[in-house]
Order: sequence, then structure tokens, then C-alpha cells
Amino acid sequence: LADAVRWGIAGTGVIAHQFAAGLDQLSDAEVVAVASRTRDGAETFGTLHSIPHRHGSYEALADDPDVDVVYVATPNMRHASDALLFLRADKAVLCEKPFAMSAAEAKLMVRAAAERGLFLMEAMWSRFVPAYVTLRSLLGEGQIGEISLVEADLGFAMPFDPGGRLFSPAMGGGALLDLGVYPVSLCSMVLGPPAQVTAAGLVGSTGVDELVVATLRHAGGGLAVVKAGIRVGLSCAGRIAGSHGAIEIPAFVHCPDHLLLRGKRLDCAFDGEGLRFEAVEVHRCLRAGLTESPVMPLHESVSIMHTLDTIRSEIGVVFPGDS
Amino acid sequence: LADAVRWGIAGTGVIAHQFAAGLDQLSDAEVVAVASRTRDGAETFGTLHSIPHRHGSYEALADDPDVDVVYVATPNMRHASDALLFLRADKAVLCEKPFAMSAAEAKLMVRAAAERGLFLMEAMWSRFVPAYVTLRSLLGEGQIGEISLVEADLGFAMPFDPGGRLFSPAMGGGALLDLGVYPVSLCSMVLGPPAQVTAAGLVGSTGVDELVVATLRHAGGGLAVVKAGIRVGLSCAGRIAGSHGAIEIPAFVHCPDHLLLRGKRLDCAFDGEGLRFEAVEVHRCLRAGLTESPVMPLHESVSIMHTLDTIRSEIGVVFPGDS
Repeated sequence: LADAVRWGIAGTGVIAHQFAAGLDQLSDAEVVAVASRTRDGAETFGTLHSIPHRHGSYEALADDPDVDVVYVATPNMRHASDALLFLRADKAVLCEKPFAMSAAEAKLMVRAAAERGLFLMEAMWSRFVPAYVTLRSLLGEGQIGEISLVEADLGFAMPFDPGGRLFSPAMGGGALLDLGVYPVSLCSMVLGPPAQVTAAGLVGSTGVDELVVATLRHAGGGLAVVKAGIRVGLSCAGRIAGSHGAIEIPAFVHCPDHLLLRGKRLDCAFDGEGLRFEAVEVHRCLRAGLTESPVMPLHESVSIMHTLDTIRSEIGVVFPGDS
Repeated sequence: LADAVRWGIAGTGVIAHQFAAGLDQLSDAEVVAVASRTRDGAETFGTLHSIPHRHGSYEALADDPDVDVVYVATPNMRHASDALLFLRADKAVLCEKPFAMSAAEAKLMVRAAAERGLFLMEAMWSRFVPAYVTLRSLLGEGQIGEISLVEADLGFAMPFDPGGRLFSPAMGGGALLDLGVYPVSLCSMVLGPPAQVTAAGLVGSTGVDELVVATLRHAGGGLAVVKAGIRVGLSCAGRIAGSHGAIEIPAFVHCPDHLLLRGKRLDCAFDGEGLRFEAVEVHRCLRAGLTESPVMPLHESVSIMHTLDTIRSEIGVVFPGDS
């Protein structure tokens, strides 16, 4: 690895811009290349972020010899195929969440990375922001005792756009995959994989879940309730209840600036881009020769996809790729 | 009916004291009699609240000709049998929640009241406090549009007491019947009866639910999530999310002193005893010759018991009287 980690960015959407801005705040990151489906898209993004290589296809990015690791920020339904493209070109991959459209897809990605000894991680950036680092410390110290309930939701009253990505089953839209993945991941982090999943949802006219509520029962005894909505605002907060009190995670649960431990405020604010923290983890892992992050391990990303699959199945949301 | 409504109180627990204090704040209520299983219990309570008739049995209260209406505040597993005792003695009845141990019991009570043309109501006092009156007004005005999600929970970290009522299946203990009935009733008030109920719970060593999470799916499309806990503190808050924003019900959800309508605070504070408001409703109904309250109608009390039955069944909590 060179002094700076050399990044390629696949996709030029909002989150790709935020990620590029995050890398710009790191001294040891260099964004070498960007790829879009169109040359124009790559040029515009590359100019804005001063990225030298601008590729009009993801294949060209995969062939770029100057790239160590690719950040996959393409639409949900492309995550698996794009991640596989880059892994097969011997690039390490940081892949946006949802990690894939299904656990089956996620397993293919994990296998491809393992076969090549390459680093792969789900871009669950929340896990790396200061509040989540603090949260894991508090839980590790047993501050609230035995945990019986984890709750989290994320929901926004977005305009109904029947032609848009968010409302398209073919593009992996719906509340669950776009927003629900955050609370599901939080519950997984705190309680591990669920042993039993039940869910109810409101499926809209385009066939995606516009509201979803899921209850997860964990083998260790803890329960979790996750909610997500794309046409209705939810609390966007979280709460972890234990035998010795609760930790509250105020809005926004995926990137809070403080926590409340038994009502006491713990400041976790930070300046700059929230997405840079996951990049720091990628750098650390690459330099240490790790093929996955212990904070967001691959078996857990597969498990989270499995939970999302089960919830989707329970509420009757079907994607074209479902077998 | 005399100028003042003449009350009898069956039971001398904490809530009976609060109810007596509530009646004391009403100009048109007279507490004529109190009954306990023991003469001493009745005497002590009667002295404290200046109640002239003190009965050492519930049967004696049923036979008291000076009583118009009996407030049944006996332990959960006695609600149905005590309500039936008083109804059969031609008394109107206000019966503490949970209304009964099961929907089957509740139906017996409703039938007994109907056969005799007597007033009967579940003592779901929350429905009558100012915040709930305001809440119904806001919902009736369509302030938040179409409602897609109702959430509410109530949970307290109470000491584990394996010999106590709260932890006893025989006495109708557990989080659901003691605390969960409030959020279930709130959801019923807002969305009507659920069409589908799923639940998960943590059942403790004494066989009662110490934590319960239930998701209710309503025929009209709305979802509800209710939670209750007796060994873990929950938010004790509620939230109603609609297409035009949310109404938040801050702790304590069963008797809040304000609401938040799209973040705007609506003061609903009041002085004095919260339990008096349900008594005002009883007075109003009795004077109007009603046999049930339109605010807390009997079919809804039966439906709520049915929901509680289903949740209990889902989490495997069995009471001795279950058939």
C-alpha cells in the first residue's frame, strides 16, 4: 500500500459526494478515480472533487491499476454485481448499505472477497461515528446491565414519486432497505443476530414497503423493535433498555451528536463529514492486512441482509431478483 | 338518581385511595360505602375517607341499598366475578382495567349489564383526562391526516417479587395486563380494533410477561406498536404518525400534561386527581340514562380484552382460568 490509500468511487449520487468530501478531510486518502455510467457524470463529479481519473463505465474503474479500494455507491440493486466486478479485478471494496438485495447476493460477495483475500466491508458508516464508538464502550462496560429491549426507527415523510428509485422494487426501494437497514444494524450490533423475526408493513401502490415494523427476538433473550418509513415521519431515535437503566439515542439515530445514559447527556458531536469515519476504518484494516473489519464483520452484514430478507418476506415485498 | 351519585368502592388498594380522593373533588359524588375482604381493611379505608358504610365483604356491599354504582378496584382476577356480583345486585359498575382476565369474562359482564339495563364501564381513566380529550379533538379534526402508525409503551423497572401480585399468573399479573392495557387501549381509541396481532415477550420465572412487544395491524391500514415492561423502564411515551405530521404524547402516556402537535406544545395540565374525570363521565352517563359510555364503550372493552388475550397467547402466558 502506498502512503495514501488510493480510492476509486463508483457512483456519483448524493452519498458519493458526501463520501468524497469525507475523504478530503483525511490526510492519508487520495481519490484517484471516479466512475459513472456516463462520461459526463464522471467528469462533473471528478472536476468538483479534483479527481484525476474519470471513467465512463464501472468496468474502466475496475481496470484502473492506480486504485486500491473502491467505494461502491451505485443504486441498491447494483451493489452486489458492482462489488463483484471490483473484487474480481482485485480491488478492495467498501460497499454501500444495503450491502446487497438479499443475503444470497451478500454471500456471493463475501465468497468472492475471501477467495481473493481481499478486504470487503459494508459501508455502515454509523458504526464508526463517535456516538457509536461511545455506545459500544458503554455497552462493553455493562453500564446498563442486561439488555432486554433495543428500539430504533428512521422515517421521513418523503413525497410520493411512483417513478423514483425509492418507490421501485426493481431498484431495491422501500423504507426497509433504504432506512430500516440502520435500525436493524443497530440491533444486530447490540444483541447479535435475531433468532426470530416478525414484521408488519404498509406496502404502497408501487409494491415497496412505505412503512415497516419488525420485532426481532434474540437467542440471548433480548427483544428489538425496528421501524422505518418513507412517507411518514418517525421519531428517528433509538433506545436501549437494560436492567440498570437505558441509553437513549436521540434523532438522528444513525448519526447522533449525543447520547443519554440514564438521562445524563454524553456529548458525541464532531466537526466535518460523518462518512469519513468509516474510511478511517478501511484504511486501518488495509494497513493491518485485515480482510474485514471487526466492527462491521462480513458474517454480520450477511446476517443483517438475512434479517432484511425475512422482514421483506413477512410483509410481502418482492424484488425481481428474488428466487 | 339522588342529587349526588352514591358510590360504593370495592377494594382498598392504592388505586381505590386515589379514586376516593378523586370523588372527593366532585361536588355531586358521595362515597356511601367501602368494602374489603376484611372488616379492618374497610374500617381503615372508611375512616381515612370519611365513608359511612364499611363492609367486611363484597357481598355486603352488593346488598347495600344506598349504593347506586360500585367502583370495582379488586385484584385483576376478581374483576369479572366482582363486577357480576354487583350487577346481579342491580348496581351500576365502573370496573378497573384490565376489565377482566379474558374477553370471555368481559362478555359475561357485558351480557349481565345488558340483561339488567345497567350501566357498566371499564375504568380506563386515561380516556377522560384533558390530554386525551384534546387528542380526540385533534384526531377528529384530521390534524395529522391519515394515520399510519400509533406507538405507545409503559414500563417500569420494578423490583422482582416472586410472591407478589404483579408476578403471579393466578392474580393476572404481568406487564401486559397491568401496564400494556393502557397502550393497547390508546391504539384501539385511535385505530379501532386490530385485524391482526403479533407479539413477542420475555416471560420470567414466575410465568408472567416481564416485557412484551406487540404489533397490531388494523383493517384500515394503520399499524400500532405497543410495549410494556415490569422489570425494565421504557419511554412511557406515545406517538401518532400521520400523513400530515405527528402527535407526540410525552411520558407518562396514560396521563400526560401536554401533547406535541407537529412539535408544538399543547398544554393539557390539570390540578387534582386524574381519576376523577372518569367518575364525571359515569355521572354524566347515569344522569342521561346511558348504559355505557360512548367514550369507552363496552364492545371496545371486549375487543381490548380480546387483543390482550391474543398477545398473551402469542407469548405463551397462561392464566389458571384460561380454557
